[in-house]
Amino acid sequence: MYGRDFANTMKKGLLFVVSGPSGAGKGTVCGAFVKRAGISLSISMTTRKPRPGETDGEDYYFVSEERFLKTVSDGGFLEYAKVYDHYYGTPKAPVTTRLASGIDVLLEIDTQGALKVKSEWPDGIFVYILPPSIRELRRRITDRGAETQAEIALRIGESLKEMECIDQYNYCVVNERFEAAANVLTAILTAEHARIGRDIHETIRMYKEETRCYTHPSI
Amino acid sequence: MYGRDFANTMKKGLLFVVSGPSGAGKGTVCGAFVKRAGISLSISMTTRKPRPGETDGEDYYFVSEERFLKTVSDGGFLEYAKVYDHYYGTPKAPVTTRLASGIDVLLEIDTQGALKVKSEWPDGIFVYILPPSIRELRRRITDRGAETQAEIALRIGESLKEMECIDQYNYCVVNERFEAAANVLTAILTAEHARIGRDIHETIRMYKEETRCYTHPSI
Repeated sequence: MYGRDFANTMKKGLLFVVSGPSGAGKGTVCGAFVKRAGISLSISMTTRKPRPGETDGEDYYFVSEERFLKTVSDGGFLEYAKVYDHYYGTPKAPVTTRLASGIDVLLEIDTQGALKVKSEWPDGIFVYILPPSIRELRRRITDRGAETQAEIALRIGESLKEMECIDQYNYCVVNERFEAAANVLTAILTAEHARIGRDIHETIRMYKEETRCYTHPSI
Repeated sequence: MYGRDFANTMKKGLLFVVSGPSGAGKGTVCGAFVKRAGISLSISMTTRKPRPGETDGEDYYFVSEERFLKTVSDGGFLEYAKVYDHYYGTPKAPVTTRLASGIDVLLEIDTQGALKVKSEWPDGIFVYILPPSIRELRRRITDRGAETQAEIALRIGESLKEMECIDQYNYCVVNERFEAAANVLTAILTAEHARIGRDIHETIRMYKEETRCYTHPSI
């Protein structure tokens, strides 16, 4: 019992969920965040075929529709959705196993997926990535190939509509420079590990127990 | 209206309150935190005389009892208390002025003071500093001059009793090395600036207003 450590007592894995509208640059930010914070990125499962350069188990787990639907019926997804002709989902087991081992897990998923995860995992940390300004969002959308004014207006409108559920999130990070945004994500992760949770009184109680041993002068 | 910036829209000063039991080392941690984060330390007001080496307006505002009690009756303190023969208090005006200007303010005050501030300022960030272990707390208490086993046991008992109100705080930082603890405080401050507040929908609404201007192709 002697020498118990406050730091170790409180360490546990956190579920970190990042979303954001198209053009916010969340993929780049998350890539830098994984490198910086050593957080473990969750790999999604999909029924679509790999594109050139994509690796199974790295970009996605590429599976058959039969295997995907079996996982659905087994309750094996934290969230899943059908987008056009293909299914996409977040496998539950790798997430829960890592969290239980004290490893932080990052999900980079869309707003609908994030809200499903939140209903099952309200203790998760939900972060929304924003573009620095509408002007910059417009520039990024144009760079991605939107050409007509109507297309640009449509995409900006979609992004703004997406932002309406932002109050379901805990944090909002403005991605002006991706390194700075990744630093803020890292700070949020550090802060959340320091957050006082329901188990704090149990920790204090253990220390009181331990203190009883301190009548012995040699300790 | 063009080129409005999400980052600037959301910037405002935060009230950061740090407490902790004797032997937790909060003074050293706060000193490093002020240097690192550029947060503005609140200077307390007291009726006790300056000790050798203490500077008025730097360590404390040293004032007469008459002046102190006048400030009390004017409602000029966020919190104050009488400890033995002297009064100590946190002047309200410098805090509110700086917060309104977007400057973060740090209060390093005891638990009773912190809880008074919290009742008036529930949006503040309340951080509790803990020693790394009971063994280390004992060592620090002994270094500070506690000699007999009874004295040491009394001090440890007082520290543990102080910790009972820890669940009134938002964060708990273990001070194993003060630089690392100051880094965690800095991360908490960064994270809290990214926290989604009540004003987020106002921000989104402003962006929607702004977007209406984007029918003009030259923007």
